[in-house]
Amino acid sequence: MTVDMNSVITLTTDFGLSQPFVGVMKGQILTRYPSAKIIDLTHAITPHWPVEAGFWLARSYQYFPPGSIHVAVVDPGVGTQRAMVCVLADGHVFLAPDNGLLAMVVARAAPESTEIRRIDLNLLATLNLNAPSATFHGRDIFAPLAAELAAGRVLPCDLGEAIPRLMPSSVTDPTVEAQRLVGVVITVDHFGNLISNIDATLLRCFKSPVVRIEAREGTRELSLHRTYGDGRPGEYLALINSFQVLEVACVEQSAAGGLRLGRGAPIEVVEAG
Amino acid sequence: MTVDMNSVITLTTDFGLSQPFVGVMKGQILTRYPSAKIIDLTHAITPHWPVEAGFWLARSYQYFPPGSIHVAVVDPGVGTQRAMVCVLADGHVFLAPDNGLLAMVVARAAPESTEIRRIDLNLLATLNLNAPSATFHGRDIFAPLAAELAAGRVLPCDLGEAIPRLMPSSVTDPTVEAQRLVGVVITVDHFGNLISNIDATLLRCFKSPVVRIEAREGTRELSLHRTYGDGRPGEYLALINSFQVLEVACVEQSAAGGLRLGRGAPIEVVEAG
Amino acid sequence: MTVDMNSVITLTTDFGLSQPFVGVMKGQILTRYPSAKIIDLTHAITPHWPVEAGFWLARSYQYFPPGSIHVAVVDPGVGTQRAMVCVLADGHVFLAPDNGLLAMVVARAAPESTEIRRIDLNLLATLNLNAPSATFHGRDIFAPLAAELAAGRVLPCDLGEAIPRLMPSSVTDPTVEAQRLVGVVITVDHFGNLISNIDATLLRCFKSPVVRIEAREGTRELSLHRTYGDGRPGEYLALINSFQVLEVACVEQSAAGGLRLGRGAPIEVVEAG
Repeated sequence: MTVDMNSVITLTTDFGLSQPFVGVMKGQILTRYPSAKIIDLTHAITPHWPVEAGFWLARSYQYFPPGSIHVAVVDPGVGTQRAMVCVLADGHVFLAPDNGLLAMVVARAAPESTEIRRIDLNLLATLNLNAPSATFHGRDIFAPLAAELAAGRVLPCDLGEAIPRLMPSSVTDPTVEAQRLVGVVITVDHFGNLISNIDATLLRCFKSPVVRIEAREGTRELSLHRTYGDGRPGEYLALINSFQVLEVACVEQSAAGGLRLGRGAPIEVVEAG
Repeated sequence: MTVDMNSVITLTTDFGLSQPFVGVMKGQILTRYPSAKIIDLTHAITPHWPVEAGFWLARSYQYFPPGSIHVAVVDPGVGTQRAMVCVLADGHVFLAPDNGLLAMVVARAAPESTEIRRIDLNLLATLNLNAPSATFHGRDIFAPLAAELAAGRVLPCDLGEAIPRLMPSSVTDPTVEAQRLVGVVITVDHFGNLISNIDATLLRCFKSPVVRIEAREGTRELSLHRTYGDGRPGEYLALINSFQVLEVACVEQSAAGGLRLGRGAPIEVVEAG
Repeated sequence: MTVDMNSVITLTTDFGLSQPFVGVMKGQILTRYPSAKIIDLTHAITPHWPVEAGFWLARSYQYFPPGSIHVAVVDPGVGTQRAMVCVLADGHVFLAPDNGLLAMVVARAAPESTEIRRIDLNLLATLNLNAPSATFHGRDIFAPLAAELAAGRVLPCDLGEAIPRLMPSSVTDPTVEAQRLVGVVITVDHFGNLISNIDATLLRCFKSPVVRIEAREGTRELSLHRTYGDGRPGEYLALINSFQVLEVACVEQSAAGGLRLGRGAPIEVVEAG
């Protein structure tokens, strides 16, 4: 399987922007590949929670040109024996620790377009990467590797042997029963919207879906709307957002703040009674 | 009216950087125009408040080369019938929802250098933009449109018919009377400075201007200084800042925190008594 | 002394990203030098504290290609008589106010690779920089100057006369005695790790170093580990981080939050008793 690289490299981490962690990753990329076009996906992933990184990456890579390289580093096991992987999926390349981060990417990609390789640490010496720090593989391994791949000096198939599967995600897919679907809030966005792992396609089994969420003051039942502007300010509503997942919003306000809910809260969909 | 594009595209939104909203806009721009030079103006506009985006844009575009494209998306009405506009002003191109956001830009530009066009939604199909989401026009319409404009594949005059005026801003311009000028705090900056909508030129009518602001503990009267270093740490002062508007600052501290004032607080200028 | 520029310009400020301060600096760079590759090191330096900017810069520039230009603006004295300097060190170029910010950079570079020049304000007129604002030299002087240097239209040696030394930093280097080393927390990172100014090399004098830190509940004694994964979640440990300084961490939690310590807290290293 081959991919033509296009010099776009995206970065997704839990490093924040308050220290130069991300900056020095970019410095290492430009040192090896001055033509790189580096785009930040986000650096505000909940620290040490690979699930959120994988969720956003699985929902975002499609908006980049094929042949982009996506580096994702949420890596509580850095410096331990955890593996690092290179995944080809859908014409894109992904580099990440093998800690469940890329599970959602692979789950959504066509299997015949997917290839998983475990990065061979012996290879790193041949790329002059022979003394990485024990705590910052983003800068010392992933960034240089992305640059080498983007420059075409190394190919994904050179990185190590193909393996059949990744480590699983720590969050399971939504459970689907006859009249009932249960998912979970993966993240709260900047507007306070509660974003779930329930894909739009799962709602097709419902004639008239009702979304239930447990708030402190009792269960809220919400109907599905098309857009935020369909409600009055302060009104709660459910909608399929622009990343094709179910979210709970409060018009021009924060649903997370109003309902005091966040990451991990269950969201249920049932047939209107 | 024509503009020579220069491949610079700036982005101003209320999306924050904690999710990949801005990242996927950039992905869409690079997909259509790989040579784009994308610059973030800010993504921390107060959510759903187009006034602040327009204020900063009107005060910032001059620092970019002529022929830059400025995309601003603060869009509580996304997915409803609100229009989208393309404004040419002063040799720059602006794309935004028609919700008052661009009013300050147009107000400050020379009328003969200004052209307003309402974006024709039928045009979008010809650009392969025929199924935008209902909630994320930044990614699905504005970003691709900016890329097409920067690439020169579509011209501003192709985007729709010229209209005489924009929707007005929800904040009115400062009122000017004989001996008295009243404006409002538009935003609080990172240092806690209170930034008003009072332009430097308005102060020229005063021989010896005194700035009045209502704090919880009573009215503060402040004289105008040239720079922060003119005061002692902790001292309040007023100055014309580098964006040529009046601001209230507290040397090496936060004026907003100290006075417990913020967005919307009135600021008055009177002649020294 | 000469340096071949490579079109990379890094930016380090205390401006935050919530207003367009950084954006307009980039606009000014691109206006003068469209080929610039601009990288944010960080814009979240503690406001008005040049020490932290210098610390990160001294620990980060090595990850960028030689010939990069590093602009650092933490500048409480902007608009006063404080000087501005251009430093060549180790094949890199640094521009900053002369307020101690660059002291750590110069302290760590080989003296024979180092040259300090005081920027001659008369020069600015020849670069069309004749009316800078009194409050925003980042946009009005440093950014254009970096662009002119990167473009090769002006050389570091043109910027002003060489001076023997910089203003000193307000934080002194760690004190080293026979069996005892005392440093200080310079910054708390995104994960809550307490990052000190104690360089890894200083620990070589200890056979079995123990790190002591004064928390509210008493003195903590910590042994040195190799990486975060060496401890259990919630365990405190000390380690030499990837920037080669001593830090105190709490596995998968915030050491700063748990110990209620931050910038300025002393950190001591002693021989195990």
